[in-house]
Amino acid sequence: MPSISQKGNSMPQSPIRKLVPFAEAAKKNGTKVFHLNIGQPDIKTPQIALDAVKNNAIQVLSYARSEGSEEYRTKLANYYAKNDIHVAANNIIATTGGSEALLFTIGSITDPGDEIIIPEPFYANYNGFSTASGVKVVPVISKIEDNFALPAIEDFEKLITSKTKAILICNPGNPTGYLYSEAEIEKLKQVVLKHDLFLIADEVYREFTYDGEKHNSVMALGGLEQNAIMIDSVSKRYSMCGARIGCIVSKNEDFINTAIKFAQARLSPPTYALLASEAALDTPQSYFDEVIEEYQERRDTLIAELQKIDGVKVANPKGAFYCIAELPVKNSDDFAQWILEKFNHNNETVMVAPAGGFYSTEGEGKNQVRIAYVLNKTDLKRCVEILKIALEKYNS
Amino acid sequence: MPSISQKGNSMPQSPIRKLVPFAEAAKKNGTKVFHLNIGQPDIKTPQIALDAVKNNAIQVLSYARSEGSEEYRTKLANYYAKNDIHVAANNIIATTGGSEALLFTIGSITDPGDEIIIPEPFYANYNGFSTASGVKVVPVISKIEDNFALPAIEDFEKLITSKTKAILICNPGNPTGYLYSEAEIEKLKQVVLKHDLFLIADEVYREFTYDGEKHNSVMALGGLEQNAIMIDSVSKRYSMCGARIGCIVSKNEDFINTAIKFAQARLSPPTYALLASEAALDTPQSYFDEVIEEYQERRDTLIAELQKIDGVKVANPKGAFYCIAELPVKNSDDFAQWILEKFNHNNETVMVAPAGGFYSTEGEGKNQVRIAYVLNKTDLKRCVEILKIALEKYNS
Ligand SMILES: Cc1ncc(COP(=O)(O)O)c(C=O)c1O
Ligand SMILES: Cc1ncc(COP(=O)(O)O)c(C=O)c1O
Repeated sequence: MPSISQKGNSMPQSPIRKLVPFAEAAKKNGTKVFHLNIGQPDIKTPQIALDAVKNNAIQVLSYARSEGSEEYRTKLANYYAKNDIHVAANNIIATTGGSEALLFTIGSITDPGDEIIIPEPFYANYNGFSTASGVKVVPVISKIEDNFALPAIEDFEKLITSKTKAILICNPGNPTGYLYSEAEIEKLKQVVLKHDLFLIADEVYREFTYDGEKHNSVMALGGLEQNAIMIDSVSKRYSMCGARIGCIVSKNEDFINTAIKFAQARLSPPTYALLASEAALDTPQSYFDEVIEEYQERRDTLIAELQKIDGVKVANPKGAFYCIAELPVKNSDDFAQWILEKFNHNNETVMVAPAGGFYSTEGEGKNQVRIAYVLNKTDLKRCVEILKIALEKYNS
Repeated sequence: MPSISQKGNSMPQSPIRKLVPFAEAAKKNGTKVFHLNIGQPDIKTPQIALDAVKNNAIQVLSYARSEGSEEYRTKLANYYAKNDIHVAANNIIATTGGSEALLFTIGSITDPGDEIIIPEPFYANYNGFSTASGVKVVPVISKIEDNFALPAIEDFEKLITSKTKAILICNPGNPTGYLYSEAEIEKLKQVVLKHDLFLIADEVYREFTYDGEKHNSVMALGGLEQNAIMIDSVSKRYSMCGARIGCIVSKNEDFINTAIKFAQARLSPPTYALLASEAALDTPQSYFDEVIEEYQERRDTLIAELQKIDGVKVANPKGAFYCIAELPVKNSDDFAQWILEKFNHNNETVMVAPAGGFYSTEGEGKNQVRIAYVLNKTDLKRCVEILKIALEKYNS
């Protein structure tokens, strides 16, 4: 019998995969499960994007240009300009989600055995994309006590070797909700320039910042043109995760020309989704204002309610729509399973993501969970109530 | 300045990429360029698939299940059953095109430095997917004199080493149009069983067979359950290349569970395209009958006309919609550029794909081109006429 590769064997499972059967069993038993475990918002996709697809006149559903049409990339560049990011169409490659943008980026700048430094906790699939490319993730720990702020630059420098090719940040962060300050981005700039590294910034949550805080893109920084790579996506911005359109943005021509070769090999991003994504660029500002206000209120509700629970510690997120909460439990994997398998309150329970999967350092995050505030406020309140009652029962 | 990886540098360019600027310049000068160079059919997508997207009621464009919904995979399994391929929903993973199916397959069964044996000439992007995974393509040559039939099994066995993980075939073949016989598939079965290899069959052109010939799928063969991996796609079957839906099919559970981890890392195939692909499964047989008849007539026209040109040798394709033609020129790269750059006949010219890019052995295919018969018969006739006049002029 032929065998699976080492690479295949070491591809990580999604951190919540083990919980799925328990959630399914709970539902089968008539328990309502609130999903706080995934980054799938309940927010409506802009009508203008939905309509573009409904009203399409396609007769032959053809391949799109591998890097996305000139028109789309030009419009996208105009959108970025409004966000203080000044790029041209040829600095952009349209990809099949931010996911593919990450995969092409890692493929273009690393060889098997190379290393990428990432502040942890981080988006779990960075592990998958790295493993798929034979690359080692080198974590540098950020702390809940600091709201998951950027670790000291010395902590990065200690980890840089001849194999280090890039530092990868997520800004604002999934799972932390942390929004990097201008000073932090400036520090990262200095270290990547000093060591000739790429600075990859996953900015798929750029538009989701709260309390009037400003987002600082790596693309807005002078002097970083050859080093900065931005990862973006329409998934969260327009609540169109199922479209599967993202992009790579960089002013480094060698890098873009290399990433385009990966894009050509897979022929084309999805054509319907490109229609939707191009139309979505005309989404009125009022849509964003409403969405941001809604998320900010959800965050406020969630954090306030969580803080009322004895023994719960929570970082205050300034962006994205996740928070990491430390629970008064030893092992959040066990608790997340128990609350699905053995618990319900008036036939309702919640599914959360154990945070261990967001850390690369063994044993870190064992008492933490990630909560996505992708539900309305009433549901969120009820979710925290369920958590509270569950924790009391679990700990008695 | 940070640098591109060796992998990135060795990612191949598409074989026609160099010609694109010349085609664009020709068009700018008012010359009509007939595109025989790409696998983008002009055939209309089934109305039922187009309508499913136009009439969708999506409000929140959400992620689809990573491996595709149970319903879609069940319907797909039913479709295969009608083609003598008996599989269950959990033998199938929906992917973003056949392209991604190939990438996940190679990732699941190879480590960097491993080898895959492929009869050449082969679909050029096999090089790209292999390079992206750090895998070496080992070509085994098939000959135009034999219509590109399966090379002798001894030729494969000579190339098998401890690093060989799979044999990859394309059936029917792009660029050859060759359709493997049952006896040939049986021979491949024996050799992969003997050496514990995977047999990957790219069957994205399965439905396109002519002269009443039957397609022989690797999935229809008993005893090959642990070795056979089928790659499929809706791109050509329903002329919906822009959808970006394909799939991996295998009865090897370890393999499927591994490939699913790659699928989970990238979250989801495109949701609109899944709608179209599911609806397309209800395409009436009459659609296929008409399309196959149309392609068969095109093939007949193309081959008959090509054979009238002095010095042109052409293999007779039994499937897909490509043929390889040997031209009376030394270097088909130069000729393909010249016909765009320096030639036109009544302001019309043609773009063909130089065949060198479909060979992995240096120097092979230098006097060959691939012609895709994706245009109507009148246009095809005119194309061959242009080729004929061009060859006369080029050689004088
Ligand atoms: C931080 C981060 N990056 C990238 C992605 C990938 O998203 P997509 O492929 O849908 O664009 C996600 C999705 O949740 C994410 O949270
Ligand atoms: C032989 C072969 N395999 C796979 C593909 C990939 O097609 P897609 O990714 O559109 O399914 C193609 C496209 O032309 C092809 O010719």
